[in-house]
Amino acid sequence: QIDSARLWGSIHETAQFGATAKGGVRRLTLSAEDKQVRDWFRKACEEAGLEVHTDALGSQFGLRKGRDMSKPPVGIGSHLDTQPTGGKYDGILGTLGALEVIRTLNDAGIETDAPICVVNWTNEEGSRFAPAMMASAAYVGDFTTDDILSRKDAEGTTVGQALDSIGYRGDKPVGFQKLGCFVELHIEQGPILEAEGKTIGVVDSGQGVLWYDGKISGFESHAGSTPMPLRRDALATLSEIVLAMEAIARKHGPNAVGTIGEAVIANPSRNVIPGEIAFTMDCRSADGAIMDALDRDLRGAIAEISARRKVEVKIDLVWRKPPTHFDPKLIAAVESAAKTLGYSSRRITSGAGHDACNLNTIMPAAMVFVPCKDGISHNELEDATQPDCAAGTNVLMHTVLAIAGV
Amino acid sequence: QIDSARLWGSIHETAQFGATAKGGVRRLTLSAEDKQVRDWFRKACEEAGLEVHTDALGSQFGLRKGRDMSKPPVGIGSHLDTQPTGGKYDGILGTLGALEVIRTLNDAGIETDAPICVVNWTNEEGSRFAPAMMASAAYVGDFTTDDILSRKDAEGTTVGQALDSIGYRGDKPVGFQKLGCFVELHIEQGPILEAEGKTIGVVDSGQGVLWYDGKISGFESHAGSTPMPLRRDALATLSEIVLAMEAIARKHGPNAVGTIGEAVIANPSRNVIPGEIAFTMDCRSADGAIMDALDRDLRGAIAEISARRKVEVKIDLVWRKPPTHFDPKLIAAVESAAKTLGYSSRRITSGAGHDACNLNTIMPAAMVFVPCKDGISHNELEDATQPDCAAGTNVLMHTVLAIAGV
Ligand SMILES: NC(=O)NCCC(=O)O
Ligand SMILES: NC(=O)NCCC(=O)O
Repeated sequence: QIDSARLWGSIHETAQFGATAKGGVRRLTLSAEDKQVRDWFRKACEEAGLEVHTDALGSQFGLRKGRDMSKPPVGIGSHLDTQPTGGKYDGILGTLGALEVIRTLNDAGIETDAPICVVNWTNEEGSRFAPAMMASAAYVGDFTTDDILSRKDAEGTTVGQALDSIGYRGDKPVGFQKLGCFVELHIEQGPILEAEGKTIGVVDSGQGVLWYDGKISGFESHAGSTPMPLRRDALATLSEIVLAMEAIARKHGPNAVGTIGEAVIANPSRNVIPGEIAFTMDCRSADGAIMDALDRDLRGAIAEISARRKVEVKIDLVWRKPPTHFDPKLIAAVESAAKTLGYSSRRITSGAGHDACNLNTIMPAAMVFVPCKDGISHNELEDATQPDCAAGTNVLMHTVLAIAGV
Repeated sequence: QIDSARLWGSIHETAQFGATAKGGVRRLTLSAEDKQVRDWFRKACEEAGLEVHTDALGSQFGLRKGRDMSKPPVGIGSHLDTQPTGGKYDGILGTLGALEVIRTLNDAGIETDAPICVVNWTNEEGSRFAPAMMASAAYVGDFTTDDILSRKDAEGTTVGQALDSIGYRGDKPVGFQKLGCFVELHIEQGPILEAEGKTIGVVDSGQGVLWYDGKISGFESHAGSTPMPLRRDALATLSEIVLAMEAIARKHGPNAVGTIGEAVIANPSRNVIPGEIAFTMDCRSADGAIMDALDRDLRGAIAEISARRKVEVKIDLVWRKPPTHFDPKLIAAVESAAKTLGYSSRRITSGAGHDACNLNTIMPAAMVFVPCKDGISHNELEDATQPDCAAGTNVLMHTVLAIAGV
């Protein structure tokens, strides 16, 4: 059994780095607050006897030796970055839970056959730089390191510049740390476990993701003197797209969602009809055929709206992540650990994307979910209980022990 | 006849203050660029022999003596501030046209009975600080000077601070310069004169304006893991309001318009359902009963949308300007000046608000319109011809001579 109080203590200690007034965390990837938590994490890993390295995209790897160093390490961990108005658990539980597993094994003097590697992946959230799960995507070869280094945030700062600005461009090439498999603990970020009174979600699959950048070009004109029929209003165009996206996701539901999270009017003014809007779209489904249908329906709706309103709309698919099907043996290992420990569990699909989904494309991967309050995440009010966090960390530890061999 | 080349020269000389790459002007009220054009204007007025004073809200008044100084001056002028992406003529033609009238009278050695006062009103546009036509509204007593001085822009800077930052908080109280009447020259900002091939618009009325500040409070949550039916999406709510506003304006059309020009998502992120949006609304009609109907329909639609989506929407009417009916004698004077000069003309309603609409509430006022290309305004592509600008300025001069007495 892990030390529940110690785990809870580290979660709340690190929540000071970027703490918001409403009890959440604002710790955008590669920000000053991210540097603070990274420094804390490196020190904690070193104190736990791990050999810590950082790769060229800033991901941190802490290695615990195994009896058989010819075996590839069992990877565990998650991420320490948050949304602009994020919570204290998303990513953090999985990373500090991994650290807690190491601390517990150390205290109990338990050696494993295979080494264990604790990882903090850079920019999982994807809100400062696209795509989400950026560093793990480069790790598995979906993108080159140079491509990722040149990605820009809204202010035009590149990933490379941001890494340098906090001193976290590591000296190891991406992929230097081989892993044999990866297990990630996370809050569910949805309402199912809580509603069903289950403690552990045995994650067997994950939704695929489509991310688009969009730009609407209408025509700025005077709000008072431009008759309604002559308008080419970028915001009215966006509004139709938002509602079309909502209707399309519902039509393909329940196994589909669609969201417009960002929309910025260029040079807004009260008495000017909006002329130009930049926006983003996020569509998901656990079913690849539904993802294709979402893309097709969305493009069709946008073409119709754009033609009817004589307003140009450009959309650009910037990221496509297919649905994830986790490794059956690892899924079984998670399930059996939950059973052995006496926790109630159910199989579950992840609505969110995770680094484990990327790793699953080149190695066996799996995930452990615990409930979060009202299914709320990507919100400062995100919450989870200490017993559930401890339960998930115990399941993580027992899964690792089963895979790594004692 | 005024000097068309000199007028054209001053319009294009001052267009350098805030010139944009697309040929427009960005000269927000009380900005550094506004200071530049104010300095230029004060110097030009002084060189034309005017006695220049600035009031406590930064409006500039240049007085040309009359034979009978017991008569109240005839006011002429407009504004030199622009929209964030504005044109070279909106407000500028009326202010520099007024200056051109003075220069022409000087050159011709013409004295008038009543004095003439050229005015540059502060913050006509209303995009940095609400309401529009701010200084003339204070002049006529719609707001106190202190109220206006405390209005804030999006950055939280007050009008008072902005005035001080460019050294234009004048030493004269608002209202120090009495005026007997006011005549304003302006581009039409709509498509009617051009479409009908008329040179002069004799403005007999102006639309009333309703300005609202709105705030939508939904609930931020994860774009991937929040099922569609559980969402309280602030952007989808806004989208319904935008389309409802459009439908309501069309229903009450053609004599009604409605626009949402500003909408800002708080802490936007691609994979977060928008939780909070601040927005503005602008509704207009030349008919007071239709204005009331717009307000009623809009509030009804918003209440229904808000209840159905379980998303709170607050709206706050920050400005209500009733429709304007200009002074019949002054309207006739403008019409007769156009006729005498041989320009084609028609009566017209102003779609936009103007300082003359405020002044009309306490003194006789009227306006002269000239065509602008494709009716485009509040756009960097705003355009007008030199002959039309000269024609409008001639009509302004002859109207002034008729009122002031030669
Ligand atoms: N787990 C999580 O919130 N990841 C962020 C990436 C995404 O799914 O949008
Ligand atoms: N003339 C003009 O564009 N005024 C700005 C105020 C408004 O009508 O919105």
